[in-house]
Amino acid sequence: MKKRLFSGIQPSGEVHIGNYLGAIKNWISLLDDYDCIFSIVDYHAITVEYSPGVMQERIINAAATNIAAGLDTDRCIIFVQSQVPEHTELTWVLNTLTPMGILERMTQFKDKAQQNEKNINVGLFDYPVLQTADILLYKGQAVPVGEDQVQHIELSREIARKFNTRYGELFPEPQHILSNAPRIMGLDGKNKMSKSMNNYISLIEKPDAIWKKLSRAVTDENRKRRDDPGNPDICNVYTLHKYFSTDSELDRINKQCRSAEIGCVDCKKILSENMVKELEPIREKSLELINNPVSVMDTLNAGAEKCRKIAKETMSEVRSLMGLR
Amino acid sequence: MKKRLFSGIQPSGEVHIGNYLGAIKNWISLLDDYDCIFSIVDYHAITVEYSPGVMQERIINAAATNIAAGLDTDRCIIFVQSQVPEHTELTWVLNTLTPMGILERMTQFKDKAQQNEKNINVGLFDYPVLQTADILLYKGQAVPVGEDQVQHIELSREIARKFNTRYGELFPEPQHILSNAPRIMGLDGKNKMSKSMNNYISLIEKPDAIWKKLSRAVTDENRKRRDDPGNPDICNVYTLHKYFSTDSELDRINKQCRSAEIGCVDCKKILSENMVKELEPIREKSLELINNPVSVMDTLNAGAEKCRKIAKETMSEVRSLMGLR
Repeated sequence: MKKRLFSGIQPSGEVHIGNYLGAIKNWISLLDDYDCIFSIVDYHAITVEYSPGVMQERIINAAATNIAAGLDTDRCIIFVQSQVPEHTELTWVLNTLTPMGILERMTQFKDKAQQNEKNINVGLFDYPVLQTADILLYKGQAVPVGEDQVQHIELSREIARKFNTRYGELFPEPQHILSNAPRIMGLDGKNKMSKSMNNYISLIEKPDAIWKKLSRAVTDENRKRRDDPGNPDICNVYTLHKYFSTDSELDRINKQCRSAEIGCVDCKKILSENMVKELEPIREKSLELINNPVSVMDTLNAGAEKCRKIAKETMSEVRSLMGLR
Repeated sequence: MKKRLFSGIQPSGEVHIGNYLGAIKNWISLLDDYDCIFSIVDYHAITVEYSPGVMQERIINAAATNIAAGLDTDRCIIFVQSQVPEHTELTWVLNTLTPMGILERMTQFKDKAQQNEKNINVGLFDYPVLQTADILLYKGQAVPVGEDQVQHIELSREIARKFNTRYGELFPEPQHILSNAPRIMGLDGKNKMSKSMNNYISLIEKPDAIWKKLSRAVTDENRKRRDDPGNPDICNVYTLHKYFSTDSELDRINKQCRSAEIGCVDCKKILSENMVKELEPIREKSLELINNPVSVMDTLNAGAEKCRKIAKETMSEVRSLMGLR
């Protein structure tokens, strides 16, 4: 039997190529080897201020783009977290097993608390326990994550062990799968690509918008004039080429940049064309889905239906071991 | 329309006369004026270590004795908290509205943390938010509490206001109803009556057990010999008389104790007889119910059914205001 893999997807609206290269492509490569469940984690998203009026749109867009990018729902489950209330029920149970001190030491909480000084709420603090419940509810064994989430998966193992020791063996200890993809830097060349930094190219960007954004992207900053030779090793545009261009193109650009044979504009044009080529089918499929939200909702509902069944079984085992009914 | 009243009942097994005089009699007096919901709060009980094997027994006993003591289920709803998972779902939502600092200042958390130094868990910390969810889920307007819970009801008002301000008017601000009954001291005359101090008389105590316990109860400690006059004002046995004896008995004992006409043994005999007279029907009815746990469960299930209906409606309003589905 395949191991079960769980991952959360933030309903942050537009999905960008940082998500695509850093996470989605990795997930796609795991679809065959694991029994995969992906959850659009709206109950996580509400731990920071948001506009209620656009939440459904954000959820539909996240689902549509991830499906279009390759999370084929014939090969995995995608569902919306808040449609399976057992996530919060198991969170409460696990709260009673989680020492305060452990959560206080979570690096991400400390970072988020600094960023949200005016709104350091209990949800932000309890976030890693909800995350643990997300995984354990499906007895998830594998969790693909970035480096910044490793500490949370360690916590989920610790909580699983605590439950098993106190009430009886039930949960496997989830293991993290670190993605090989380095984190994708934004077009400013300085910060991780993200919506909030507005340094991203979305998966549903039109071809001319891709070109417009790339044309302004920061390259090797030491290459001030067309005649200056450049250094692809420190050029973020060259890094992006690695994901979208062929080996021979990479080879040629590498040489021609160092000798100033090719300028940044031409280099970017090649990248833009290749990017458009790869992203165009994703964009078309995404828009098709976004324009038919009812069908996306049907897919998500079907996923939630399957998950509720598993979740209810797990909670019934949890309650029985705990002497609850 | 009657206001809705909500109160939690700890599934602590045996119910003692401290609970009866301090809480249950007060609840009974409110049954006609309010639309009352009582929840046996097992999801609160798991925040401290317990034996899973006896939890169901504790729940059945708590339900049986409270019903026998006068919580007539034709006039109110009694149900088990964990049978309505929406309590935990609303807790998660309210967590995101609750600043860390407020919970850190809760007096009861500080006390409990001191008592449970080895197990200061997140459930213990988050307890007042679950309590808020318990109340708000049913749009509770009145909450009968002891002095020690007033801070938590203030918190629930604050959280209700926060929700209403951020997402739209939905929750009434719950008001506390302070019980007139002073807190009942245990038979040691020193500590509040409680199971853990083993200074209690339970509602299902047999008549001879009541006498045995009362015969050892601490009286006015300055009255060392039978001939010494006593002071009813500082005698806990006299205080208990006030709840079980007639005005003329009280009057006579008061005088005869001060003049040493009556000794402590005889005084206790009168109390014992009066206590047995009041408690005997409660004991009989309790045992009848405890010996028929299936019928108690049926009653609790019927209560949970009604509560789930209300809870689902509230959560659907909550989700709609928050832009969740």
